Amino acid sequence: MPERPVIALIGAGAVGSYYGGRLAQHGQDVHFLLRSDYDLVKAKGLTVQSCAGDFRLEPGQLKLHRAPGDMPRADVVLVTLKTTANDQFEQLISPLLHDRTAILTLQNGLGNEDRLAELFGAERVIGGLAFVCINRLEPGLIRHTDYGLIKIGEFGRPITPRLRRLSDIFNASNVKCQMLENLAMGRWEKLVWNVPFNGLGAALDATTDVLVGSEEGLRLVREIMQEVVATAHAEGVMISPDLVQQNIDKTLTMGPYRSSMQIDRQVGRPMEHEAIIGEVARRARKHGVNVPQIEFIYRLLTVLSK
Amino acid sequence: MPERPVIALIGAGAVGSYYGGRLAQHGQDVHFLLRSDYDLVKAKGLTVQSCAGDFRLEPGQLKLHRAPGDMPRADVVLVTLKTTANDQFEQLISPLLHDRTAILTLQNGLGNEDRLAELFGAERVIGGLAFVCINRLEPGLIRHTDYGLIKIGEFGRPITPRLRRLSDIFNASNVKCQMLENLAMGRWEKLVWNVPFNGLGAALDATTDVLVGSEEGLRLVREIMQEVVATAHAEGVMISPDLVQQNIDKTLTMGPYRSSMQIDRQVGRPMEHEAIIGEVARRARKHGVNVPQIEFIYRLLTVLSK
Repeated sequence: MPERPVIALIGAGAVGSYYGGRLAQHGQDVHFLLRSDYDLVKAKGLTVQSCAGDFRLEPGQLKLHRAPGDMPRADVVLVTLKTTANDQFEQLISPLLHDRTAILTLQNGLGNEDRLAELFGAERVIGGLAFVCINRLEPGLIRHTDYGLIKIGEFGRPITPRLRRLSDIFNASNVKCQMLENLAMGRWEKLVWNVPFNGLGAALDATTDVLVGSEEGLRLVREIMQEVVATAHAEGVMISPDLVQQNIDKTLTMGPYRSSMQIDRQVGRPMEHEAIIGEVARRARKHGVNVPQIEFIYRLLTVLSK
Repeated sequence: MPERPVIALIGAGAVGSYYGGRLAQHGQDVHFLLRSDYDLVKAKGLTVQSCAGDFRLEPGQLKLHRAPGDMPRADVVLVTLKTTANDQFEQLISPLLHDRTAILTLQNGLGNEDRLAELFGAERVIGGLAFVCINRLEPGLIRHTDYGLIKIGEFGRPITPRLRRLSDIFNASNVKCQMLENLAMGRWEKLVWNVPFNGLGAALDATTDVLVGSEEGLRLVREIMQEVVATAHAEGVMISPDLVQQNIDKTLTMGPYRSSMQIDRQVGRPMEHEAIIGEVARRARKHGVNVPQIEFIYRLLTVLSK
């Protein structure tokens, strides 16, 4: 990877604008693909209100593009699309690739790396988990309210030099970044929290404090987490069953927190239930693991999203 | 039953105020038990905006009472409490009874007649189903928007002379009333609609059109209805499986309808999920009938109502 890699950011929503903005703020060569927001951001620039420090990028400091064909070939493609737009991978990413382009997806849920590997070759693919609360208030105006850590790992491989470079770039850009020896383990560990709280949160339109606010709620959340752990184990990913209690304990301290999928439902955006819930259900089925609570939540979300 | 029976109305919410108001409007001797609304209704009277004809009862035309001990012994106790207040049966109804007082409950769901029979003797108990859309806009102001039919039946007995008298009184008071040969069958038939649409409607905060708006939704609603039919059959109540399709067809014509339990959830009132969902689950368990969808919805509602 060159000293100052060309970074193409695909999916400049809240998460993409934040991380891409941080990289650009710290001198990285970031090219943003914008579609509906292009004109507004071109006129107004990007403003980020952030718990890690506010910042602003003027229009002249931003490299904005309307279509991937107008962008340079990239050394790193950073994918922050909603998973509901994954059917656009080919069209958006193909024009950006040279022989050694790495593709880093920071998307939610399962299956994104697999799909990218299928389309573009597994050797290109890096996965990342974003632990962060960010909302887009309007085009060009982002509010980052909490957390911010990302964890990145090679797809099906241990840590590589390019992963270290990427991690260094993020850490030098006010984005705390850790490397994962085992990306799949990181993904499944995150799902232990995401499946119950995004799933029930969106299906019931309920904040985390409601879900863990009663014995019955705790029992249900715990059962769902145990179904996630069992499915991970069937996939050969040996996450610790202690994560169930650790995630519950953490959630009990969080107050009335709205998961991203609950927010998506409330504002009428497509929900990422296929990547976060449906894909877990499909893997469980493949291995013959019984996950009745997850299956039911998946049904409810499917009904709600039609 | 005397020519002009003393009728005591317990639970002057929307449904109670409407039916009690109709009876009073047509010259029946209706005594209303009011608690939090007493002062306001005493001052302003009762106004009903109704699709069957608006009417108003001035304070001087209403017999209002603050406590059951202040009311006369009644020939008919009309129970329109929310089922969430059923633990007050003894305290509210005992003072009103003479040897031959009949108790007619117009409450939702299952188990109300059983509880009244246990407390006061099965021979007193009559059950009724109200098919009606009524809201209380404020104390003393009721809006009746649709339907209005009630069906009444003796508890565990065929039609009696007193049931005919009651039916005649309602029909003479602009309330369409039919008699049921088999009350249990009527209750279970109503549950075929109520369990899926009140249950999912409240759990998901979704109107009926969303629930029947996709293949997945129709499949889920149908499965839940089939679980209700199976439970009724196990109880010895041979409702027709054709009701499943009939109820779906009817709902497809209804547009975006909010069930009473969805409204209760939205406005923060206690939900009647024990009477409408929980009691069905308990009867299924008793007979060893497998009702996984109903059990799961019951869990979700229990979590939400804590």
